Amino acid sequence: MRELLSQRARGVKRSEIRELLKLTEQPGIISFAGGLPDPETFPTQEFAQAAQQVIQQDYHKSLQYGATEGDKRFRQAVIDWLTQEGLPLRLDEIIATSAAQQGLDLICKVFLDPGDLVYCDLPTYLGAIQAFTAYQAEKIGIPMEEDGMNLEVLKSKLEEARRADKRPKLVYIVPNFQNPSGITLSEAKRKELVEIAQQYNLLIMEDDPYGWLRYEDRPIPSLKSLDKYGRVILLVSFSKLLCPGLRLGILAASPDVLSEIVKLKQPTDLCTPSFTQSLAYHYLRAHDFHERIEHLKRIYKEKRDAMLEALEEYMPRHPEIHWTRPQGGFFVWMTLPEYIDSTELLRRALSAQVAFVTGSAFFVDGSGKNTLRLSFAEQKPEVIREGMCRLGQTIEEAIATRVT
Amino acid sequence: MRELLSQRARGVKRSEIRELLKLTEQPGIISFAGGLPDPETFPTQEFAQAAQQVIQQDYHKSLQYGATEGDKRFRQAVIDWLTQEGLPLRLDEIIATSAAQQGLDLICKVFLDPGDLVYCDLPTYLGAIQAFTAYQAEKIGIPMEEDGMNLEVLKSKLEEARRADKRPKLVYIVPNFQNPSGITLSEAKRKELVEIAQQYNLLIMEDDPYGWLRYEDRPIPSLKSLDKYGRVILLVSFSKLLCPGLRLGILAASPDVLSEIVKLKQPTDLCTPSFTQSLAYHYLRAHDFHERIEHLKRIYKEKRDAMLEALEEYMPRHPEIHWTRPQGGFFVWMTLPEYIDSTELLRRALSAQVAFVTGSAFFVDGSGKNTLRLSFAEQKPEVIREGMCRLGQTIEEAIATRVT
Repeated sequence: MRELLSQRARGVKRSEIRELLKLTEQPGIISFAGGLPDPETFPTQEFAQAAQQVIQQDYHKSLQYGATEGDKRFRQAVIDWLTQEGLPLRLDEIIATSAAQQGLDLICKVFLDPGDLVYCDLPTYLGAIQAFTAYQAEKIGIPMEEDGMNLEVLKSKLEEARRADKRPKLVYIVPNFQNPSGITLSEAKRKELVEIAQQYNLLIMEDDPYGWLRYEDRPIPSLKSLDKYGRVILLVSFSKLLCPGLRLGILAASPDVLSEIVKLKQPTDLCTPSFTQSLAYHYLRAHDFHERIEHLKRIYKEKRDAMLEALEEYMPRHPEIHWTRPQGGFFVWMTLPEYIDSTELLRRALSAQVAFVTGSAFFVDGSGKNTLRLSFAEQKPEVIREGMCRLGQTIEEAIATRVT
Repeated sequence: MRELLSQRARGVKRSEIRELLKLTEQPGIISFAGGLPDPETFPTQEFAQAAQQVIQQDYHKSLQYGATEGDKRFRQAVIDWLTQEGLPLRLDEIIATSAAQQGLDLICKVFLDPGDLVYCDLPTYLGAIQAFTAYQAEKIGIPMEEDGMNLEVLKSKLEEARRADKRPKLVYIVPNFQNPSGITLSEAKRKELVEIAQQYNLLIMEDDPYGWLRYEDRPIPSLKSLDKYGRVILLVSFSKLLCPGLRLGILAASPDVLSEIVKLKQPTDLCTPSFTQSLAYHYLRAHDFHERIEHLKRIYKEKRDAMLEALEEYMPRHPEIHWTRPQGGFFVWMTLPEYIDSTELLRRALSAQVAFVTGSAFFVDGSGKNTLRLSFAEQKPEVIREGMCRLGQTIEEAIATRVT
């Protein structure tokens, strides 16, 4: 069988991080590893109502095949919401996707040939790295600063590619409270990035699953809203705003980009489930989505505050230990002394019944051995405190024994 | 933007057939064009019940992220059903997919490099042709006989490829009541095809959305059940057995093939919706699926019989007009005199308020201009009769005027 495999399949390794994640799911372990939303926030009553309507009155549409572009009613409901949020779109600028991950896959499918260049943050979202790998792209990691991607480095890498006659295609950005770093791209950099894309003939993938979960300060305009060239493709996921189990998102882009994406979505899955789109449509029409998001923000802000306070309290004071203070989203990112290998640290942590995700999987250049990601989204505030206490002791011991 | 497109995207044309299909959906037109199941067969009461359980009691699982392989409970329920049907499988031999179309896409993703050879029937399922094109495969069409693919031609094409040092990878088969031809692959040919796959180091994609909808005679063992080499990958869709709007299917293969598919499914969509899998699981556990399928067979048999009777009655007697008599599924395939172009015929038919799908889109070699596909699944028996009457007159006129 092996000799039948495509080059693509030969290049993709089974994810180590997923094997590790299985260990973190044992009972008794306080896990900050997964990036899962809190299931107690899922709108179960509202969905139960909507499901009755969808199944009994709307079955002709909601249980049947649908258009590859997605259900017009769902897309219009999303447009209405995004318009309120300052991002007006037309129906020919938006399609439904089977969550943002499918959007990532489709963009790669439409734009990447083997060896094409994709630029992303160091660190960046693992699912995007895996998608780029599956399309045999060359991944170029760009260091992050406190306000996001270092655009000077990006430009010099683009010049380098130009000299080497390579094909730069995409820049991948999670603009708000990035997974995994928690860092937000500043407005000035957003504007500059759009200009860079125009100058170097690139597309920008703006993957924004967390943008609406902002716990302080004012929102920053999306790259999509700053783009007058049609170079930004925006992915919005409902995994964090409604629930992940629907696998529902939208992809917004210029009509010519969308038309290419629809052409290749068709043989991928014919269409995103009509059923989940109908359910979301009925939900959005019957309920105040803005109010739901306010509710989510209260819950997750409390969790974030609990984690940041507990980090202050329990982490050893050490000049080489620091962490991010995200203004929203799910994640805090921690950097440890160079000599700490977070994979080894995870083994110790699991003995102490606490877990996180090791950072190196998020770096396309193989760096980041001394980093880790903590998600505050799943656990209750008091459990977060207890977990940080355990983690603090584990790190203290690791530093004391200088385990590498 | 065009210069950023991948070679893959440049090779995929927008489907003409889909543009034509839009014309067939106008009110007043009796359409036999779409391959959609009858929405009146959807299990709405049962789904409405199941949805309550799924959302209110099972939300921790059913609305959350799930494993890439799929929900174990859903997979086990499918295994229990398939075991009753004579196809026992283990959990490590089956994954959930976002309907069979995603299975097709994933198999291509794992096994096809540009230029690899895929063998399929003339005619074959359009969604498969599109998937092969999206992976830049070379598609080799093999003529069909009354009992399915002409295996002598297949072998000679495989020998040809061997001599030319090309890479044959996959044979694609819809074994029962094929879409679009309605033809069933005989048991003898199934056995021989498995041996050919072993001899030439190929995999067989067995795409079986219709196999359970058999209206007469006994079922023929699946290729998967006849395969002792691990060379058959079976796709089962619930689109026709439950409803298409869930986009739910399974892919069954040897564990080593599955492991490669899971590796590449992960960056494609992370997982098939937990919600739709939970719904199907609750449905399968609470209801007699076998009884549901018997019910579907009664309904669709009546429609098939109505179409075959009306064809006998209304089609002009002509030595070059013939059609298939499928033992199950949704489709009748019609061949007209060579000089009739079915695209031109469709324009006439639309004027007479009746529609079908032109056949040529189903042929990878560009032939089949004088063929067409009729689906009997959507319309009521009396509407089928009226539609066949209109079509018979249209064809009679076309022959009389020898329009080409």
